[in-house]
Amino acid sequence: MKIVFSPDHARHHPQTYFKAGTFHEPQEVPGRADALLAGLTTAGHEIVPARAFGPEHRAAVHTPDYLTFLETIAGRWKAAGMESDEVLPNIHPGRRMASVPTGVVGEVGYYSTDMSAPIGPETWAAAVASSEVALTAADLVLNGGTGDQKAAYALCRPPGHHAFQDQAGGFCFLNNVAIAAQYALRQVRRVAILDVDVHHGNGTQGIFYGRNDVLTVSLHCDPTDFYPFFAGYAHERGEGAGESYNLNLPIPPGTGDDGYLEYLDKAKAALGAYAPDMLFIALGLDAFEGDPLVGLRITTDGFRRIASSIAELGLPTVLVQEGGYNRDFLGDNIASFIRGFEGA
Amino acid sequence: MKIVFSPDHARHHPQTYFKAGTFHEPQEVPGRADALLAGLTTAGHEIVPARAFGPEHRAAVHTPDYLTFLETIAGRWKAAGMESDEVLPNIHPGRRMASVPTGVVGEVGYYSTDMSAPIGPETWAAAVASSEVALTAADLVLNGGTGDQKAAYALCRPPGHHAFQDQAGGFCFLNNVAIAAQYALRQVRRVAILDVDVHHGNGTQGIFYGRNDVLTVSLHCDPTDFYPFFAGYAHERGEGAGESYNLNLPIPPGTGDDGYLEYLDKAKAALGAYAPDMLFIALGLDAFEGDPLVGLRITTDGFRRIASSIAELGLPTVLVQEGGYNRDFLGDNIASFIRGFEGA
Repeated sequence: MKIVFSPDHARHHPQTYFKAGTFHEPQEVPGRADALLAGLTTAGHEIVPARAFGPEHRAAVHTPDYLTFLETIAGRWKAAGMESDEVLPNIHPGRRMASVPTGVVGEVGYYSTDMSAPIGPETWAAAVASSEVALTAADLVLNGGTGDQKAAYALCRPPGHHAFQDQAGGFCFLNNVAIAAQYALRQVRRVAILDVDVHHGNGTQGIFYGRNDVLTVSLHCDPTDFYPFFAGYAHERGEGAGESYNLNLPIPPGTGDDGYLEYLDKAKAALGAYAPDMLFIALGLDAFEGDPLVGLRITTDGFRRIASSIAELGLPTVLVQEGGYNRDFLGDNIASFIRGFEGA
Repeated sequence: MKIVFSPDHARHHPQTYFKAGTFHEPQEVPGRADALLAGLTTAGHEIVPARAFGPEHRAAVHTPDYLTFLETIAGRWKAAGMESDEVLPNIHPGRRMASVPTGVVGEVGYYSTDMSAPIGPETWAAAVASSEVALTAADLVLNGGTGDQKAAYALCRPPGHHAFQDQAGGFCFLNNVAIAAQYALRQVRRVAILDVDVHHGNGTQGIFYGRNDVLTVSLHCDPTDFYPFFAGYAHERGEGAGESYNLNLPIPPGTGDDGYLEYLDKAKAALGAYAPDMLFIALGLDAFEGDPLVGLRITTDGFRRIASSIAELGLPTVLVQEGGYNRDFLGDNIASFIRGFEGA
């Protein structure tokens, strides 16, 4: 399988984030991409550079104000005399907000969902490159030119599935899989996004919640006591035209390969009934049994079985990297997943 | 003037809060109440202990779920294995929330507006006592028994005006002035709340935003680059039955006594037109020129002039302490304010 990559991911290197009442060292670091690339190179996959795509593809998913915010806030934060190197929110009134703010501190709160999306001076450049990785992979599948070219893998970093149309969160800034899926709709009638990251794909769900041309399906650890907490529950089915075009399958913490595959069968039934022209996999590897974020208990061979099962759908597929934080196993796990997908 | 006080304020002693990208030492500490009490004692005012009031008075303003949250979260935070001594949120999706969360981390985000309302093991007890201080002062004015008893001062701590019906924020948990105003409506037809804290009284505004039996007026530093950022703008006028019963007077940073008194005249005009039966002053002293939060430039004598001007309204009045953080001057400033109010 062709692997799309951009070295610009390394321009984003978060230094800290806040949870459980204290600051932590981020796991979403450049070494993740290095580990994934090494594993894929070892497995013999061809590495393809990302190509440039214009801002219209990001603007097709995100609001203009949010994109301007992401592009400018690091400089404005410094200019306003803030004390940290990274942009982090401290204000978040949400449902009780009386006015949309225009100052630096207010904007950071308005465009963030949590304390785990620190923005550094080159985060914007890395996020744009990551979206271009996803777009290049989508383009390969759509316009690859051969009948064999039915799948490609986007080595995206920073990840994207927690980013909403106008909010960053969970180490995500631009929603790569949403941008690539929206791009595909220029050529195909409808697409599906299957999110297998251990965390619910809340941003992706939010972006497409009112639409029926993108089916969003997410398998993830039960969010009651797990990120993102405010979304990912089974009763969230979409709204308006999108009613019944969102499927959440929360999975009990600690579930292993066999249990997971039963939930995956439910996801596949929904995908089969929808009969999309094209599939996007939001491919987190953090459901791994050895992941530091400890949610589910998928083995390296489990990822092969999951991918093999998804491949049975027989759809043109773009695999878009999301989370996964055990750098000692990321290379093996992504190689195992792609091996399973390719039926090897 | 009678001064209502409870020593239980000292059970709440926040250790840290987060703004501008880093943690800071809180200014909202027990020493504030000590300084206020010393200044008032020196000035010869009579100190009256707060008496107990039942939970129905807090429930008349705050939601049942929020009150349960405040009462239980410190213990549940510890039991859930969180790493900090104090409860602080890290998740705040606000307008993009798909479900109301039920786990500890999600609840903390849901019931908070920012990173500056840390909850310790005895915060609930102190907040309840603070609400009882305000209720006792209101009761003195309503039922004091003599014609002279037309004003009383509530030495509230923690403060209250940033607390919404179901959210804590800005070192506020229970909205003391709102609880006392609601209590007064048992005996009088309509009341007004005049907020002279340097920060907009966003919680108070939110609680009464749809009502016309409580006029809310707030004078404060322009919130564009000043807490609370998301509220306090002039266009916020109330909604529904409360339309035109909320008046915000944002004041340019650095404004001094004379400029402030011009804004106060606008507030007084609105109060006069409303003709309430009773007035509540949300009395922050942080508009002081020497306050560490640096917004406006009111002098100690300026507080006397402000109070003297408000007293011209001739209304039965409850003065409810809100912010004010320069402990070296709090005693002088509160004594000056009350001296002005009493026409001395």
